Amino acid sequence: MPRMKAAVFVEPGRIVLDEKPIPDVGPHDALVRITTTTICGTDVHILKGEYPVARGLTIGHEPVGVIEKLGSAVQGYHEGQRVVAGAITPSGYSEACLCGCHSQDAAGTKHGWKPLGGWRFGNTLDGSRAEYLLVPDAMTNLALVPDGLTDEQVLMCPDIMSTGFSGAESGNIHIGDTVAVFAQGSIGLCATAGARLMGATTIIAVESVPERIEMARRMGADHVVDFTKADPVEEIRRLTDGRGVDISIEALGRQQTFEAALRVLRPGGSLSSLGVYSGDLKIPLDAFLAGLGDHTIRTTLCPGGKERMRRLMGAIASGRVDTRPLVTHRFKLDQIEEAYDLFANQRDGVLKVAITP
Amino acid sequence: MPRMKAAVFVEPGRIVLDEKPIPDVGPHDALVRITTTTICGTDVHILKGEYPVARGLTIGHEPVGVIEKLGSAVQGYHEGQRVVAGAITPSGYSEACLCGCHSQDAAGTKHGWKPLGGWRFGNTLDGSRAEYLLVPDAMTNLALVPDGLTDEQVLMCPDIMSTGFSGAESGNIHIGDTVAVFAQGSIGLCATAGARLMGATTIIAVESVPERIEMARRMGADHVVDFTKADPVEEIRRLTDGRGVDISIEALGRQQTFEAALRVLRPGGSLSSLGVYSGDLKIPLDAFLAGLGDHTIRTTLCPGGKERMRRLMGAIASGRVDTRPLVTHRFKLDQIEEAYDLFANQRDGVLKVAITP
Amino acid sequence: MPRMKAAVFVEPGRIVLDEKPIPDVGPHDALVRITTTTICGTDVHILKGEYPVARGLTIGHEPVGVIEKLGSAVQGYHEGQRVVAGAITPSGYSEACLCGCHSQDAAGTKHGWKPLGGWRFGNTLDGSRAEYLLVPDAMTNLALVPDGLTDEQVLMCPDIMSTGFSGAESGNIHIGDTVAVFAQGSIGLCATAGARLMGATTIIAVESVPERIEMARRMGADHVVDFTKADPVEEIRRLTDGRGVDISIEALGRQQTFEAALRVLRPGGSLSSLGVYSGDLKIPLDAFLAGLGDHTIRTTLCPGGKERMRRLMGAIASGRVDTRPLVTHRFKLDQIEEAYDLFANQRDGVLKVAITP
Amino acid sequence: MPRMKAAVFVEPGRIVLDEKPIPDVGPHDALVRITTTTICGTDVHILKGEYPVARGLTIGHEPVGVIEKLGSAVQGYHEGQRVVAGAITPSGYSEACLCGCHSQDAAGTKHGWKPLGGWRFGNTLDGSRAEYLLVPDAMTNLALVPDGLTDEQVLMCPDIMSTGFSGAESGNIHIGDTVAVFAQGSIGLCATAGARLMGATTIIAVESVPERIEMARRMGADHVVDFTKADPVEEIRRLTDGRGVDISIEALGRQQTFEAALRVLRPGGSLSSLGVYSGDLKIPLDAFLAGLGDHTIRTTLCPGGKERMRRLMGAIASGRVDTRPLVTHRFKLDQIEEAYDLFANQRDGVLKVAITP
Repeated sequence: MPRMKAAVFVEPGRIVLDEKPIPDVGPHDALVRITTTTICGTDVHILKGEYPVARGLTIGHEPVGVIEKLGSAVQGYHEGQRVVAGAITPSGYSEACLCGCHSQDAAGTKHGWKPLGGWRFGNTLDGSRAEYLLVPDAMTNLALVPDGLTDEQVLMCPDIMSTGFSGAESGNIHIGDTVAVFAQGSIGLCATAGARLMGATTIIAVESVPERIEMARRMGADHVVDFTKADPVEEIRRLTDGRGVDISIEALGRQQTFEAALRVLRPGGSLSSLGVYSGDLKIPLDAFLAGLGDHTIRTTLCPGGKERMRRLMGAIASGRVDTRPLVTHRFKLDQIEEAYDLFANQRDGVLKVAITP
Repeated sequence: MPRMKAAVFVEPGRIVLDEKPIPDVGPHDALVRITTTTICGTDVHILKGEYPVARGLTIGHEPVGVIEKLGSAVQGYHEGQRVVAGAITPSGYSEACLCGCHSQDAAGTKHGWKPLGGWRFGNTLDGSRAEYLLVPDAMTNLALVPDGLTDEQVLMCPDIMSTGFSGAESGNIHIGDTVAVFAQGSIGLCATAGARLMGATTIIAVESVPERIEMARRMGADHVVDFTKADPVEEIRRLTDGRGVDISIEALGRQQTFEAALRVLRPGGSLSSLGVYSGDLKIPLDAFLAGLGDHTIRTTLCPGGKERMRRLMGAIASGRVDTRPLVTHRFKLDQIEEAYDLFANQRDGVLKVAITP
Repeated sequence: MPRMKAAVFVEPGRIVLDEKPIPDVGPHDALVRITTTTICGTDVHILKGEYPVARGLTIGHEPVGVIEKLGSAVQGYHEGQRVVAGAITPSGYSEACLCGCHSQDAAGTKHGWKPLGGWRFGNTLDGSRAEYLLVPDAMTNLALVPDGLTDEQVLMCPDIMSTGFSGAESGNIHIGDTVAVFAQGSIGLCATAGARLMGATTIIAVESVPERIEMARRMGADHVVDFTKADPVEEIRRLTDGRGVDISIEALGRQQTFEAALRVLRPGGSLSSLGVYSGDLKIPLDAFLAGLGDHTIRTTLCPGGKERMRRLMGAIASGRVDTRPLVTHRFKLDQIEEAYDLFANQRDGVLKVAITP
Repeated sequence: MPRMKAAVFVEPGRIVLDEKPIPDVGPHDALVRITTTTICGTDVHILKGEYPVARGLTIGHEPVGVIEKLGSAVQGYHEGQRVVAGAITPSGYSEACLCGCHSQDAAGTKHGWKPLGGWRFGNTLDGSRAEYLLVPDAMTNLALVPDGLTDEQVLMCPDIMSTGFSGAESGNIHIGDTVAVFAQGSIGLCATAGARLMGATTIIAVESVPERIEMARRMGADHVVDFTKADPVEEIRRLTDGRGVDISIEALGRQQTFEAALRVLRPGGSLSSLGVYSGDLKIPLDAFLAGLGDHTIRTTLCPGGKERMRRLMGAIASGRVDTRPLVTHRFKLDQIEEAYDLFANQRDGVLKVAITP
């Protein structure tokens, strides 16, 4: 039985490079030889034991690779094609999917809904930080990489770009909107790019790290508020001449940014939340206008599926967005522990790393 | 200068019947002779001093009456017509209104938005609990009562029915949805009726007062959970066979009901909040799925304007909904203090009272 | 090889009862033993040769039955369960499906879109008018019949009710809307019921057959215009006091009804079209306001998939809608030619027939 | 009584410069001194007598100017402010406006709806091609020009840009959509810019005039199909690899372009129509998939009102769009007949002209 290298979760604090059998390919599956993957903030939660996964699980949910083998029931693809799959791999046939809510998919269960059920890679199934990855429901999830795009050009599509853009989409941005984006990590940067792409005409990013401030401007921010120098709520009020913003996007996952994102809204505004929170949230009575402000708060888990990937890669192929600058460091899979160390500690101005087996 | 009777706020704990001049009619205004009005839970907040208004203000925001006099610039109406106006009286021309967000209207201000700005009667302008009421922006707000409808048939339109229905509308109910409605006071009962009217096919109301339980069934609830006998979250899970509801409507304004309304949602579900809260709210991490549940939380302030009133009265005229059973007690304006006493203390099974000058 | 009876298309004018092998069950399929099915207007087009299908194809797209055998890859069901499948059986995994446009699904093709591609039963695959039916993509399409519902109670779900309701849904009906429905055949009657279920408060049906006029009132019409006695456009203008309707639903498929449905709209109104047309359509310049009327014209092909079926059966189980009165005649599969003769010639007040093998 | 110059319609074929009294200012009005205006294709229809207006009416519906005098009831503005008003000047208070359908507004009428009722300038009221313009419902319609923007920078906002962008908006463009825009006159060019601004990632424009082809690329088209060199339907099919487009925008008003716009759609696609048609339209049966293609056809009349103008000027102020290149010629009001001659005959590569009194 042939074996492969994989970065597996051993126990809190330890993700190590290990060997595993190359998985068998079921009828709906595709085996993908990974050519590039990356590390996500969620993986750091897993590393720290804050988000529990099974011991021995291969971590990672951003696969770029080549079809190695197709399941017996998979049609419309052939071996050797370059593909990506989303971080979220919906079945396509659950009630959740048929309602368009692919991320909360639970194929085969009684009702067809399960919290976060569409997130399988590196969560309930072995993930992408390995030499090979088994993609479930391959016909729902494999998207061909357009000719001419490199691995690094599409590396953000599976998660970062899909999640970041969804922050703008769930905010329901219209032409002429004013938008605030809290935090300019890689997801926040993609939220900024998404807001720009949807027609927001004033985009205010909140960030303090100089490299990220610069990147925020590059991705489309009109203004960047450095929260170490000014209170962002006051500053956004000032920049909008007292009006507030139509939509705010939370891209960090903290009480402070959630609350600020609510406070900067004009009445009737929408808070689009992308952050992964680690504690209860408080909604202050005044910021919530006692429940009478016609507010919308919406959370979004990374949209997946091959059509989503096709659209995101289309945005890149057409030159509308370029996420390559987000990849600041490169490692071999063999260096995975070093990569984690850099990324988890946010050293050396790291935004995203590219990992190549 | 002719004078009229009016129920005015004197100080916390005291709303008394007083005399005031009948107001002058500006060019855009209409003077309406009130024939029937009612008392709202919000007025009880005002009475208790929890919601501050100016001393001497006439309270009340549900006017049914007859046009007594029209401003010089008002066209399309004539004196003697029977009319209602919404609790919310938008200008029609602010930026908020032009965006369709009439309740947060602030005509004449710099940006055209103001929290709760559309609520003027009994808040920033003299209200309806008087012999006469000055309706601002009359051409935006006066709706003719269809022939054949009595005052009591349309008395719930300005606030209770508009607010209750908006709970269903903001939840974006589709045919076949399962909906939970927390609390069956008059607004919750109208939310139940609205959910039924929009095609929800399983409606679960939460209530403990026997008369309200009965009324909930009459307004369209398929099930009523008595929260004094069973935990409503568990009971709703049981009634939905573990699935949860597509939409939950909060119609009380308490942490407990807000939190329960979140917990009963299936992933991807929507919480439509109507309650007026009196403290900070907590969103528990688990109920919020750490921000990854594709949840929507939306608050709605009572929609107003003449077109809204026309539609609600149409629902009554066509027999789709009958809100008359909500009027459980009747008083003369001279008995206003007695009426407040009954209503504020929720005695004698009161749901709503009709006040006639 | 065991054989079964099936009603097959032989040539224009001839659909006959024949014998065929019971089909083999592929990994994603389910074999359903049909207990009840019906005949649709579309089948009459096929019979007449107006809509071409392959010779020898089994006709019919409304299956109610019992799971006889499950494919090797099908999970979450067991043999013996009572099920329905929609007339449209989407794959769930094509790009069209992932966009929520299940009816135009083309799994396995290059782009994932194909005109009418989701309609497979009795069109591109053998259909339901047989003793057994092979359901493709069973996990996307099999919906369990709730306990206590008879075959005839759910017989309209696969097509008539799904299509009729979609006429109301695509019209985007809101509480208080005025709606006109042109033609009250079985689909028009379900459009009327759907409009009622979504909160339309004035529903005007157009029909001339006395039994259908009566049925229209029963399904929720407030008014019925007999087009043999009055011009429906004028009459609807009169009934709406000159205003016009917010939404009109075309449920016949003729130039005359399409055009009338456009003419009765208020400016900014929507025409929701369900009819299957057999010739080019004309949009009169005046009715179209020269293209400046903010009109919407939307066509909808019957929504399918198990979640759709679940919701429709839920509407029946909750007592919101009862489509049993639409079934006016009953036949054995052996009498299929007689059934066609009655139905195709619309004799004896027939609305829908139930066929039982 | 002071008088002013105005370009008035005399009879078909004749629009001449005349003298008229400067209008009186009613309580809701504002008198604006025009500093720049333009000529629209609609005006050419008026000139030719194809669209009837009253003899003696001042033509023109794109005002940029300075507030000269405010009506007694107008608040929130002061004389001397630079303003624009939309081509469409809704009242804000009709039922149509309260439904968000401002262009079909009919304030003061029985139902509040009137075909094209919001279009008053140069249609039912004197228009902008004069030294002074009376703006009705000034508080709904006057939008302040942001500091730093020239007249020519905002000259396209009242009509061309608002209409063009609405073609993209009514098409409901999402990130990753493929869009075709038929005709690249000034409105088509703005539709292209709007599609780009909303996130379309493949934009195919159809045009044959070299200057317009070049301009189309500048405004955001990825491909331009010259219909004199290739059949645009075939070419768009080829460019989309057989898939078709998600949205097509018709910006000419001819049967040929309408039909082509329908034929290039993928199933389930939307045709957003901006053209002003001059004859009945035909919908070919095959292009319409017999009414079973889940198609949407939507027409849109130029959105107006001050909030719309604010947003469009915001798009210009932020540098997202620059419409200055559309202004190819400049004339004094005294040269109006010469300007019409050039524009109506589309000589000298004219796109739009600027007229300054």
